[in-house]
Amino acid sequence: MLFFTQCFGAVLDLIHLRFQHYKAKRVFSAAGQLVCVVNPTHSLKYAPTRCAGAQTSVEQGILPPCHHHEAVHDPQLVPCTCPLYSCPWEGHLEVVVSHLRQTHRINILQGAEIVFLATDMHLPAPTDWIIMHSCLGHQFLLVLRKQEKYEGHPQFFATMMLIGTPTQADNFTYRLELNRNQRRLKWEATPRSVLECVDSVISDGDCLVLNTSLAQLFSDNGSLAIGIAITTSKVHNAEDEM
Amino acid sequence: MLFFTQCFGAVLDLIHLRFQHYKAKRVFSAAGQLVCVVNPTHSLKYAPTRCAGAQTSVEQGILPPCHHHEAVHDPQLVPCTCPLYSCPWEGHLEVVVSHLRQTHRINILQGAEIVFLATDMHLPAPTDWIIMHSCLGHQFLLVLRKQEKYEGHPQFFATMMLIGTPTQADNFTYRLELNRNQRRLKWEATPRSVLECVDSVISDGDCLVLNTSLAQLFSDNGSLAIGIAITTSKVHNAEDEM
Repeated sequence: MLFFTQCFGAVLDLIHLRFQHYKAKRVFSAAGQLVCVVNPTHSLKYAPTRCAGAQTSVEQGILPPCHHHEAVHDPQLVPCTCPLYSCPWEGHLEVVVSHLRQTHRINILQGAEIVFLATDMHLPAPTDWIIMHSCLGHQFLLVLRKQEKYEGHPQFFATMMLIGTPTQADNFTYRLELNRNQRRLKWEATPRSVLECVDSVISDGDCLVLNTSLAQLFSDNGSLAIGIAITTSKVHNAEDEM
Repeated sequence: MLFFTQCFGAVLDLIHLRFQHYKAKRVFSAAGQLVCVVNPTHSLKYAPTRCAGAQTSVEQGILPPCHHHEAVHDPQLVPCTCPLYSCPWEGHLEVVVSHLRQTHRINILQGAEIVFLATDMHLPAPTDWIIMHSCLGHQFLLVLRKQEKYEGHPQFFATMMLIGTPTQADNFTYRLELNRNQRRLKWEATPRSVLECVDSVISDGDCLVLNTSLAQLFSDNGSLAIGIAITTSKVHNAEDEM
């Protein structure tokens, strides 16, 4: 049985949802797999006027969507890891998840294998689709980004980050899988830590990269289903050493 | 035990070969897998002056590397499918393989699973790495191409074509796999027929696409190992229907 979680609080049309459910089920067949419909968010970080506005409001003492803390220069504190906003928040790694949930309304899903169903793939770049994934006692941040690295040629970049340290991240392997139209694309890698910048992972291209035509081939009715699985990396290493 | 086939007749340095053998064996662990070292060929098709020269020599009755036949307008005849040269040859589908072997010196490998080891990945675009693969009673053409779709940003495109009709091609699934540096990328699709143009498959991006940074992550000492497997598509369909 498949469960649907509507991730960003909007009420979705039930007929459309059932259609997406059916399609996602056809593509990702594992029973009991959680399918999450993820709506896009137009990233504010790339809009200079809005960023400047937010910065001004911080300077004027008006709080932006994130709570602003005075700089305390505590090396234990990490900045906000939300790739959507230039958020001035900082806090301990343990409270990053609750900050992302409460302030940025990023939903969290439980389960070893989930299906991330990104809607409205046609929206212009820059656009992000973001979700948190709770698995094997840790939380991961999945970011799908539509971005124009080469002007006029938007591409899709998908990566998974551990909300934890780089040493903890080394213990895991994540897999992203696309499967449609008699084509299958799988990407497996060690997640990066959110302490590293998601922007640099994407600009380095060290992630799943899709050009527009491939994204269209894998999309269904404007939505892209990405199967996600996380394992401990012992399995991965054992395969390598075989 | 692994076998090496040196595909383009050049004598390779044995020490380098052993190193590559060891590396390829570490990456692709299946026993008995055939590893083929494939040297690059700078495509003449993209060099306008050389093409013009070849064209002139045809017009003057001087034979280019391919034998030139007068146009006979026989619908059973297919043009030369070699993506390297603007070759005026045409002939029946059954003799395409011998044309590619004899005239374009493209080697042919036998085996259900082989490793394609493309050397000198650093060479400037446009460059092609080409091999034929004999499997399940059919011959396939594997093309890896380095090309600049966006000026100054070379990308790698890999695809497999059946030397047969589109109907025959529908019976197969090919898999290309890269595996290195704790990253794994798999592409599975139905091969296209060589009667369709390899250039259009690549310009559509309906193939395995690698940007330069990913190609570097998967390369070892300037060589890229691609694991290739071909199956009948019944297996693929059965998985989809599960």
